[in-house]
Amino acid sequence: MRSTMCLLLTLSALAEAGRRPPPAPPAAETAATLLGRALQSDEAYRELEVLCDTIGHRLAGSESLDRAIAWGAAELAADGLTVTREPVQVRRWVRGPATLTLRSPTTLDLPLLALGDSVATAPGGIEADALVVSSFEELAARAAEVKGRIVVWDAPFTTYGETVGYRYAGASAASRHGAVASLVRSIAPHGLDTPHTGQQRYADDVTPIPTAAISLEAATHLHRLQQRGLTPRLHLDLQARSEEPVTSHNVVGELRGRELPDEIVVLACHLDSWDVGQGAQDDGAGCVTVMEAGALLAALPVAPRRTVRVVLYTNEENGLGGGRAYAEAHAGERIVAAIEDDTGSGAPLGFDVEALLPGDQDAPDTLRADAVIQRLQPALPWLAPVGAASLQPGGAGADISPLVARGTLGFGLRHDLTGYWPVHHTAADTFDKVDPALVKRNVAAVTLLAFALAELVDLPPVSASAP
Amino acid sequence: MRSTMCLLLTLSALAEAGRRPPPAPPAAETAATLLGRALQSDEAYRELEVLCDTIGHRLAGSESLDRAIAWGAAELAADGLTVTREPVQVRRWVRGPATLTLRSPTTLDLPLLALGDSVATAPGGIEADALVVSSFEELAARAAEVKGRIVVWDAPFTTYGETVGYRYAGASAASRHGAVASLVRSIAPHGLDTPHTGQQRYADDVTPIPTAAISLEAATHLHRLQQRGLTPRLHLDLQARSEEPVTSHNVVGELRGRELPDEIVVLACHLDSWDVGQGAQDDGAGCVTVMEAGALLAALPVAPRRTVRVVLYTNEENGLGGGRAYAEAHAGERIVAAIEDDTGSGAPLGFDVEALLPGDQDAPDTLRADAVIQRLQPALPWLAPVGAASLQPGGAGADISPLVARGTLGFGLRHDLTGYWPVHHTAADTFDKVDPALVKRNVAAVTLLAFALAELVDLPPVSASAP
Repeated sequence: MRSTMCLLLTLSALAEAGRRPPPAPPAAETAATLLGRALQSDEAYRELEVLCDTIGHRLAGSESLDRAIAWGAAELAADGLTVTREPVQVRRWVRGPATLTLRSPTTLDLPLLALGDSVATAPGGIEADALVVSSFEELAARAAEVKGRIVVWDAPFTTYGETVGYRYAGASAASRHGAVASLVRSIAPHGLDTPHTGQQRYADDVTPIPTAAISLEAATHLHRLQQRGLTPRLHLDLQARSEEPVTSHNVVGELRGRELPDEIVVLACHLDSWDVGQGAQDDGAGCVTVMEAGALLAALPVAPRRTVRVVLYTNEENGLGGGRAYAEAHAGERIVAAIEDDTGSGAPLGFDVEALLPGDQDAPDTLRADAVIQRLQPALPWLAPVGAASLQPGGAGADISPLVARGTLGFGLRHDLTGYWPVHHTAADTFDKVDPALVKRNVAAVTLLAFALAELVDLPPVSASAP
Repeated sequence: MRSTMCLLLTLSALAEAGRRPPPAPPAAETAATLLGRALQSDEAYRELEVLCDTIGHRLAGSESLDRAIAWGAAELAADGLTVTREPVQVRRWVRGPATLTLRSPTTLDLPLLALGDSVATAPGGIEADALVVSSFEELAARAAEVKGRIVVWDAPFTTYGETVGYRYAGASAASRHGAVASLVRSIAPHGLDTPHTGQQRYADDVTPIPTAAISLEAATHLHRLQQRGLTPRLHLDLQARSEEPVTSHNVVGELRGRELPDEIVVLACHLDSWDVGQGAQDDGAGCVTVMEAGALLAALPVAPRRTVRVVLYTNEENGLGGGRAYAEAHAGERIVAAIEDDTGSGAPLGFDVEALLPGDQDAPDTLRADAVIQRLQPALPWLAPVGAASLQPGGAGADISPLVARGTLGFGLRHDLTGYWPVHHTAADTFDKVDPALVKRNVAAVTLLAFALAELVDLPPVSASAP
């Protein structure tokens, strides 16, 4: 096995590096060292505790995100990476107090979380009858009943990708028919009267109306009342405001490649979170995972051949500002691959591999994806001990999607999501849910794939495959 | 099997009844009829939907409990039972608005639910440093640090019976050492930032201080901060008040026995709930279960030999006023047995059987408990199809405990509790968690044991067994 690895390290590119590098040990040997260190270190878990407990949640534009950015930069620098902060203009939306009360046929306070960019109600709130629907189709069929009502979307959770459409576009659909507010059942398989916030977007042609997530319990309760022939009457007082954009930062920690420094492998997460809970799973866990991967690579006696950059993105949750800004600012660089870790701290299951035809986000480049999966076969034995040796085509992650759109190979760490969706974008996304043993396995998975991508010579090119 | 059952129906007591009863079919035949009807009917589930969705939660002294009492009485009457309402004086405690905010080292709103009978903070709230402890022993060891602090109890959940002591007595222990408030980690194995309310009691020798339940997440967060050497600073604004006692009612629906009308079998639940959620599991499910059991027995062509009384108790949650009042008002009667259903709607697993030496709640009468388990062997094949044929010694239930203390045989329907503790006393105790198929099985279990107790002649006496 070891000799096979050595053969893969072709020496043809050494001349390009312009100097004689120090001798690198065989890649498989380095991989074993990295695996052992990743599984022994509790550094990532300890960093996550600091981020969660002493900084807390951190929405774009908040003072706590600024503190998290300073913390992330200091941690990366302490780990031996060369740190820069790249400015990004981000939106600033500020949640205010909000209450929702069922007024009839019973009185009950219902928990809610306003959705990103929601406008406020009038001071003192609004009172209106509810109209509960299960789908966009049902709303269209009952369009004549919508005017003046608060539309409640009670769409059962199927997959996140499918159901989130009601959160994202529900307010616009309701407004188009004259609703005065839109409440969406939280996007989760189950809960404990738990509202899940998240981003929504007002279509350009509608009047923005206040919009919030309510719990599964509340949505089904209102629906049952309606099915009983009753008309639930609601009072909604939702305060929120959008302010002028402010400057935030992507944090970049670089480990310069020993032979191919202009070929870059990005390790990505987002440091911002929603403004509830602690952002532990989304995406604190991903950040400490890629930070520790960078630290472990920086601690090697010999750097990998390509440059590795840990990027702690800003403003993923409500705007993708960090991801877009980074891709624009680095458009002239050869970012050959990017690994994103942004679905919590569940057990690692493998990586989703994404290659697109540059400039067309809807056109997968299957030839190139298949090629990279094939060429990474030598690294699968490295990933197997932590359960992450399964590579399959799939979406890689939001922050790196602007890079992937222009040709970068994307890799998304795939996790067991059992514990993820129930806390996603909620006050319950907290440090106590994180299993330190799984964090170590996730660090190992990212570190080893990053090492493979930075060390193995024979990767597909950063561009579309030939037709 | 059927002939065996017939032999059990001794005719010796018929003369006592003073009249010739109509012919009763063999008990096993009736049991089969009851089983089939219980498993076919969705009446209990539909009643629970009405109680939860159109009446809602119902704390003692509330207008919604009055509505629930009227509803329960009407339902029992419609099912052919003779209904009375028996007045009970109950306490009236009214929750007001409450907020808890972590002020340092980060800012975070923490959910809370005041505990029953809690006093209020001063208007505008109080701000103080937290002192987090894991046990009564740790508080005693750190007694010198308590004065002026808000004590936070972070006792991990072991069993409900063990851990609930911190909720019940934590405020008194903290006050005794000079704390200004007491916050208890919610009594549950896990949650989603979910506070669980419940009763607490101020000892006679302490100054009452405001007290509330916080989430597991918040308690462990504060504890980790303290272990890091930081002192969490909290702001607590808790409004609540105790008012003058008011009159509530136990609802009793009676089916007079055909041969032994003065021997009474009580089917018990409590109609009150905490003032959050819908009181679906605690104890709406128990109520519709015993109500439907009463209805099924009332629908038999021939009533059971003994009298069956469905009792919907008031004020179990914060005072046990209904249970005490019922036992006092009926002290002269021969209440031979009582079945309580008060641990949710999980799958039925059997019954806990409780016999006490009269007047001594700490002295189990094992001879009598063993005797009744032995004498109920003929009914086990009736209970087996729904998984409820396991009879074992254990506590029977709170509402009937004053009856059991004076000699009544107690039976508590034992449920799978997996889904119970996470929603217990929370806003998430709602109708959507209830599985209609399990409700049917619970109805069958209570109906069949009630029938056995009302029909089988050879039960142990209502009094202590001979030494």
